[in-house]
Amino acid sequence: MGVTTAPMRFVKGHGTQNDFVILPDPDVALALSDDLVVALCDRQRGLGADGLLRVARAGALRRAGVLTALPDGVSDDDWFMDYRNADGSIAEMCGNGVRVFAHYCRAAGLVETDRFVVGSRAGGRAVQVHSWEPSAAEVTVEMGPARLDGQATTLIAGRKLTGEAVDVGNPHLACVVDGLTPADLAALDLTQAPVLPAGQFPRGANVELLTPLQDADGDLDFTAHLRVFERGVGETRSCGTGLVAGAAAALHGVGRGEGTVGITVPGGAVIVTITPEQAWLRGPSRLVARGDLIDGFLGG
Amino acid sequence: MGVTTAPMRFVKGHGTQNDFVILPDPDVALALSDDLVVALCDRQRGLGADGLLRVARAGALRRAGVLTALPDGVSDDDWFMDYRNADGSIAEMCGNGVRVFAHYCRAAGLVETDRFVVGSRAGGRAVQVHSWEPSAAEVTVEMGPARLDGQATTLIAGRKLTGEAVDVGNPHLACVVDGLTPADLAALDLTQAPVLPAGQFPRGANVELLTPLQDADGDLDFTAHLRVFERGVGETRSCGTGLVAGAAAALHGVGRGEGTVGITVPGGAVIVTITPEQAWLRGPSRLVARGDLIDGFLGG
Repeated sequence: MGVTTAPMRFVKGHGTQNDFVILPDPDVALALSDDLVVALCDRQRGLGADGLLRVARAGALRRAGVLTALPDGVSDDDWFMDYRNADGSIAEMCGNGVRVFAHYCRAAGLVETDRFVVGSRAGGRAVQVHSWEPSAAEVTVEMGPARLDGQATTLIAGRKLTGEAVDVGNPHLACVVDGLTPADLAALDLTQAPVLPAGQFPRGANVELLTPLQDADGDLDFTAHLRVFERGVGETRSCGTGLVAGAAAALHGVGRGEGTVGITVPGGAVIVTITPEQAWLRGPSRLVARGDLIDGFLGG
Repeated sequence: MGVTTAPMRFVKGHGTQNDFVILPDPDVALALSDDLVVALCDRQRGLGADGLLRVARAGALRRAGVLTALPDGVSDDDWFMDYRNADGSIAEMCGNGVRVFAHYCRAAGLVETDRFVVGSRAGGRAVQVHSWEPSAAEVTVEMGPARLDGQATTLIAGRKLTGEAVDVGNPHLACVVDGLTPADLAALDLTQAPVLPAGQFPRGANVELLTPLQDADGDLDFTAHLRVFERGVGETRSCGTGLVAGAAAALHGVGRGEGTVGITVPGGAVIVTITPEQAWLRGPSRLVARGDLIDGFLGG
């Protein structure tokens, strides 16, 4: 990997308030060290974000050695979301990030169609851009299947709750709480990490709390409200895989293996569609600002 | 005030990790509503910052009606720091913000000298830019006098502590803690708001905790470590007036009415000089990135 000497360009955006620094780097000219990611994502000292999305051709990442091989369903010419957490570590996928990534690709003219594949370390993800303008888009992302793994109990927000263990590539415990209103949900104190049965969740899990499904009109079968506590992070305003896990668990709770659920999270509103083979997450993307780093920023 | 239709340009920077969105608006073409400030300073949905610095000519702010009259020591041609807190409210002064503001003025070529006056609602502030490059500068700012108002007691971090009440334009209680090491200070839990005697602090106060002064060599008389809890905000990584209050109280504690103290805060290191008539704060400024808002961002 070479080190670029040109000004480093960036775009800032978010999906349901999960926010990202986007670094366009089609030919992989950047040496994307942990230190650089941490500096860019630092909210006081850098640009500030939950994570960083490098936009590069999959083939260029392979040739540069960033990818040792292309994941399933990814071709050399696909745009690849090289995702880094704010601490520099790699995450395989991020459902909110893919929407923002797809929006950026469309708005920047990197792709000319509304349906395309975004490469990720979890494999190629089909996306559909339903509408877009420079600052706003509506995007559906293929999320892979949600697998139900039986029930489990957790202690969270001072309550003992039982929910469904759901695997969406990462582990979740999604709890639909009988009689919980949206106002009740909003009032819960989620500052403390939930206690989980270690035997059942050796790697921990994200925990979702949902209001019971309400019947809905139009394209939706149901609606619900959801909050999520992400392992190792705390409560977040939105979590793509948590939304899929929550919808799958809630549908299971009313005896359905598929359906479309409109879900409101603290960061906004999304639509999750569940089938036995596949889940889709539809929601907003926002691009806020573009710019470049000031020469010398990374020197000290 | 007119509403601009050109892309809105910004710069992001920080002073000892107190961070700011800088909006260059020399002729006051922007309608700087509370909603706009809140949207720009929102860390997930906007650019993210502790506050916003509009850079405008004092005379243009007066003619636009943003200022009803020029504060003491401010002329029409001075560059004026129109400071807004992240919630849109006005703050009269910000010691860390003035350093970043002065750095921006020098780096952007708005001023051609290293000594000049920055206008603020608390009056004109003399600044000296000791060194600068595009991303980094070292700046001294005149902070006005620190007035000692006698002793008071607070309950903070599980301890009952006595300190000096200090007025630096805003109220402070600065406590030098006997025998406290820098490691002890770093380990204190400052998540809970301090309890203050309401009779003595009717508007509340920022509370500073300091290690005892250590003798120093060279240009410094002493060194100390400091943490600050800002009223209505919580702990911050740095607070300009809190640094002045802390230095004045610590010097008073060793029987001195003046001196120069190097102080380390969680956000970095600064130098405070105290005389009976005036205080000065010297410290770093960093400019991180420049860019413009994406068309449509403020529409939704």
